[in-house]
Amino acid sequence: MNLENLSENRCFGGWHKQYQHHSGVLNCAMRFAIFLPPQVASGQQVPVLYWLSGLTCTDENFMQKAGAQRIAAELGVAIVAPDTSPRGEDIANDEAYDLGQGAGFYVNATQAPWNSHYRMYDYIVDELPALIETHFPVNQQRAIAGHSMGGHGAMMIALRNPERYRSMSAFSPICNPINCPWGEKAFTAYLGDNRDTWAPYDTTVLLPNAQQPVVGLVDQGEADSFLATELNTDVLEGVVAQTGYPLEVRRQAGYDHSYYFIASFIEDHLRFHAQHLAA
Amino acid sequence: MNLENLSENRCFGGWHKQYQHHSGVLNCAMRFAIFLPPQVASGQQVPVLYWLSGLTCTDENFMQKAGAQRIAAELGVAIVAPDTSPRGEDIANDEAYDLGQGAGFYVNATQAPWNSHYRMYDYIVDELPALIETHFPVNQQRAIAGHSMGGHGAMMIALRNPERYRSMSAFSPICNPINCPWGEKAFTAYLGDNRDTWAPYDTTVLLPNAQQPVVGLVDQGEADSFLATELNTDVLEGVVAQTGYPLEVRRQAGYDHSYYFIASFIEDHLRFHAQHLAA
Repeated sequence: MNLENLSENRCFGGWHKQYQHHSGVLNCAMRFAIFLPPQVASGQQVPVLYWLSGLTCTDENFMQKAGAQRIAAELGVAIVAPDTSPRGEDIANDEAYDLGQGAGFYVNATQAPWNSHYRMYDYIVDELPALIETHFPVNQQRAIAGHSMGGHGAMMIALRNPERYRSMSAFSPICNPINCPWGEKAFTAYLGDNRDTWAPYDTTVLLPNAQQPVVGLVDQGEADSFLATELNTDVLEGVVAQTGYPLEVRRQAGYDHSYYFIASFIEDHLRFHAQHLAA
Repeated sequence: MNLENLSENRCFGGWHKQYQHHSGVLNCAMRFAIFLPPQVASGQQVPVLYWLSGLTCTDENFMQKAGAQRIAAELGVAIVAPDTSPRGEDIANDEAYDLGQGAGFYVNATQAPWNSHYRMYDYIVDELPALIETHFPVNQQRAIAGHSMGGHGAMMIALRNPERYRSMSAFSPICNPINCPWGEKAFTAYLGDNRDTWAPYDTTVLLPNAQQPVVGLVDQGEADSFLATELNTDVLEGVVAQTGYPLEVRRQAGYDHSYYFIASFIEDHLRFHAQHLAA
């Protein structure tokens, strides 16, 4: 397994590091970032929060803008931020910001030309955690969170793999991708026209059928310009209310879709995850 | 006075806003960002920290990456982040990252072609605070801080205008620009070959002659790749030791020149400034 260290920054007494590796699942080189809290210096194995970013993002957006390292350092939690799609000159792409590179939607594509590389679901669920747990001082207590497309990814993946995650959370998630323009465009391209194949990637479809719940927290800004058209937060609130699923959905007055929103509430999310990671 | 609001984000209960205005001093349109803490909503006039960024930066780097708003919101301090030079297609520039647009060095240029726009000293000392104090709910209690080129700017400006600032601080400042490659290149271009004209822009020259001290705090990472060649921290430490000037210079083991360093210690700087702004 090749694992190349690309950068390293001391940060809040811990370390922010970027790595590149060859992904067998995605069939290309992939970059990710990891924050290791100061506790690892004393030989401690720490739990891991996986952060899935939104459209157009790389491993860098969350690490640079969310201000999460301060609290992760205090709580002794590692954070892993993968890229949002396979990347490279030889990888299928689209000129639009919401399809192709930077827009993997955390699914396993079945349609050409996407199906030769776009398998972000398997990458996030299996390959990346195996890599992290082999090469870094972490234990197998995992949490998963994300923003927008990554909020969809985090909840969908936790709902399908409840044995793998202690908790899940999301900012501004695409709650019901099979019924919004972003999701319909991406799922048509990656999965084809048969909507039956889309349902296993939709949080609001998965949640009412969940056998083993994963506790969750969602924050949604009420001034989010994508709220009315893309996010379908009300559909998520509806299935949570119907089922009693242990997911708290909070609406935050005045906040938008940006990292200024994430930064404002990331402390709540990290403390929420740490509480369940320690349980 | 035209003042155009370009963006607005709720952040930690306050507001991050970007504005554009015509600068008479710089003779071009300029953008700046302001963070207004929640206290202004109740009619309170708050003190202001001016943040001067480093080479290649705009108003956005600090606001997006430093995580300062959390503490500023708690303390009730506004933050103003100007751009680092005049900008525009008609403005003199250079292909290098360390001269021209994005590299104003906070001086008033005397040499062509720079002297028609590059007057960042006057912009930061006079024009921008006058604008801020006219249009925003702030009082005249000011502090000034910055990073690298902006750390030079912040200390140099505070030392020359002690009546205007309660406190000053810097991360990784260019302490002695007249004796390092970045400073010599920029000062030769902007100020000409006569080094006597450079001295009024050098912290280590100004500090021993200061009549009215401005309390200060400096953080310098010991793994900073620019420390040996550009920053001359030892020269600053020497004049502070000689004079007893109330400036604390801290060296932080393992930290580099990046915003991961700034984010790790910005809370100390904000609390330091707030203490003197309230005094």
